[in-house]
Amino acid sequence: NSSFNQNKHPHRRYNPLLDEWILVSPQRASRPWQGQTERVTEEKLPIHDPDCYLCSGNMRVNGERNPDYKGVYVFDNDFGSLMKEDVEFSDEPSDFFSLKPERGINRVICFSENHGLTLPEMEVDDIKNVVDVWQEQYKELGAEDYINHIQIFENKGSVMGCSNPHPHGQIWAQSSIPSSVLRTQDNLKKYFEKTGNSLLKDYVKKELEIDERIILENEDFVGVVPFWAVWPYETMIVSKRKAENLLRFSDNEKFSLAAIIKDLTIIYDNLFEISFPYSAGIHQSPTDGEPHPEWHFHMHFYPPLLRNANVKKFMVGYEMLAEPQRDITPEQSAEILKNSLRVHYRDK
Amino acid sequence: NSSFNQNKHPHRRYNPLLDEWILVSPQRASRPWQGQTERVTEEKLPIHDPDCYLCSGNMRVNGERNPDYKGVYVFDNDFGSLMKEDVEFSDEPSDFFSLKPERGINRVICFSENHGLTLPEMEVDDIKNVVDVWQEQYKELGAEDYINHIQIFENKGSVMGCSNPHPHGQIWAQSSIPSSVLRTQDNLKKYFEKTGNSLLKDYVKKELEIDERIILENEDFVGVVPFWAVWPYETMIVSKRKAENLLRFSDNEKFSLAAIIKDLTIIYDNLFEISFPYSAGIHQSPTDGEPHPEWHFHMHFYPPLLRNANVKKFMVGYEMLAEPQRDITPEQSAEILKNSLRVHYRDK
Ligand SMILES: O=P(O)(O)O[C@H]1O[C@H](CO)[C@@H](O)[C@H](O)[C@H]1O
Ligand SMILES: O=P(O)(O)O[C@H]1O[C@H](CO)[C@@H](O)[C@H](O)[C@H]1O
Repeated sequence: NSSFNQNKHPHRRYNPLLDEWILVSPQRASRPWQGQTERVTEEKLPIHDPDCYLCSGNMRVNGERNPDYKGVYVFDNDFGSLMKEDVEFSDEPSDFFSLKPERGINRVICFSENHGLTLPEMEVDDIKNVVDVWQEQYKELGAEDYINHIQIFENKGSVMGCSNPHPHGQIWAQSSIPSSVLRTQDNLKKYFEKTGNSLLKDYVKKELEIDERIILENEDFVGVVPFWAVWPYETMIVSKRKAENLLRFSDNEKFSLAAIIKDLTIIYDNLFEISFPYSAGIHQSPTDGEPHPEWHFHMHFYPPLLRNANVKKFMVGYEMLAEPQRDITPEQSAEILKNSLRVHYRDK
Repeated sequence: NSSFNQNKHPHRRYNPLLDEWILVSPQRASRPWQGQTERVTEEKLPIHDPDCYLCSGNMRVNGERNPDYKGVYVFDNDFGSLMKEDVEFSDEPSDFFSLKPERGINRVICFSENHGLTLPEMEVDDIKNVVDVWQEQYKELGAEDYINHIQIFENKGSVMGCSNPHPHGQIWAQSSIPSSVLRTQDNLKKYFEKTGNSLLKDYVKKELEIDERIILENEDFVGVVPFWAVWPYETMIVSKRKAENLLRFSDNEKFSLAAIIKDLTIIYDNLFEISFPYSAGIHQSPTDGEPHPEWHFHMHFYPPLLRNANVKKFMVGYEMLAEPQRDITPEQSAEILKNSLRVHYRDK
């Protein structure tokens, strides 16, 4: 019997945020790929596109016209998944057919008037303006009585279902705490009740000591490949101190957050020298009026690519039915990301 | 205030198998789509492809040659995610860095020697042979001391990460019960302990009474769009009587299972008149030597397409971070599937 080597032997790892295990198959990275390839194109986009419904001054599908905005611009999504309307409903308890109306607000946040920019190519000050708007939106929407959770996220790249390259993110604010957030909250709470500490604060402290999966660090935040990451180049930005949500951040901290987002997305772009696709989003305390000492601000980045610009990881059969599976280890990914250039390849 | 209408108003539904809620946005189906389209090609494939590593008599990547098989053929995956080897390992308990070696066996099951066939185009008798092999494999692999769970599944279509169109499925047999299966098991168990009945048996009974989401039914199985389905055309095949796993099925029942798989996949193919992509797989009792009276055989079908052959549903940003979201309701999907022809479009 040989002894266990995590770079050679299949193993499972535990995700304490979701209280579940994932499968790691480091030996599988070498398998040949004859399957689907993605069309990740690398065209330089214009500053203004007359056909883009997010550009300054252009008409949207519903006939409204965008103002001649500069910088960040927020508006209600014309095709939202939620509605503000409070409908009448009588609940019938049922084992198998439970259903509840859900109220909410969907917003779109344009990061810049410049159609051809992306976060890694923006100035830190301009990304800081985006963070300011996230904070304002969290405050404004959270103040609504019926809004108990605010999901801020960005889908980037057509492979991630993004239908418009104009730099933008979204907010889905709603009455209920969504399933995955609730699971995370339950686990943060259990740890907090057991130890009196923030799970993510203790985790980050250990990661900084070990210094194997940390990719980036500044005064207030770290960028880390979680020990339990499932996507090949998945990362997480975590605040060093426990901040339950965006409202806790000072101006300096918001600047630090903007800076680490810029650095991380530059690293991503440099990996395969393309505008790197991902879904990213913030997990923070719900706006349900309860105290949430267990919560700790973090931002997940889930990028789909695996081998190169054209081959993604498919989370399909086994992953959908059984559990997430990854090939290269989180430590190998962290090593690759750490060695990636800090200057954007387009500026070289 | 208008009163709630499930075809008009956003709502959440409860999934009792996973104990979590999902978001349904029926009003969103009409939004325009300018995003990524899929390349689902409709070429007729040859009966034998000299470059296919799954065809009879051909050489595989590792230098082994496939026999001149007819019908079903099983072999160990040349690039498995698991290894049989029992490695030495000493456990160190940890809050954040829990890791355990995982042993297992990966197999590939060719459904037919005919490179150009798919399940809906096969004869029921030939699909029955596939079911026989699933049963044999479950028995053979489950008899291994270190194999406690057997995941049988099929990824179909390149959009589902399938890298070879030769009709085939996979088996991942392993020491641990995977995360999603464990969650399902916990919920089946809770219901069984509370009521003494099988959750899925009671559910199917109710669905047959309501007759709104049932698409197919034969002597032994139903095909249903679950009340809590997340993929646009997600379905589930469930045995009418409680059978914990494949070993419980008689020859007749295996024939019924083959027949309903054929009918369901014909309906899928006819929907957009293409070879319909999906990931499908069986959930059944683990082979851990424990009694599992709570378990009830079912097979999930997760097809990615949404509007037509070229536009899929993206489970991205919100879905990855918060919870699954769907547009058309399960009832609308069931209606469409029920009205789909029972004769394969290629045979019309
Ligand atoms: O069929 P393959 O080539 O082994 O691989 C496919 O199915 C596996 C199991 O669902 C996934 O882990 C892979 O990402 C997918 O490409
Ligand atoms: O950005 P869009 O066009 O609203 O839509 C995209 O993001 C949504 C939220 O993650 C998903 O539900 C859609 O499937 C995806 O295409």
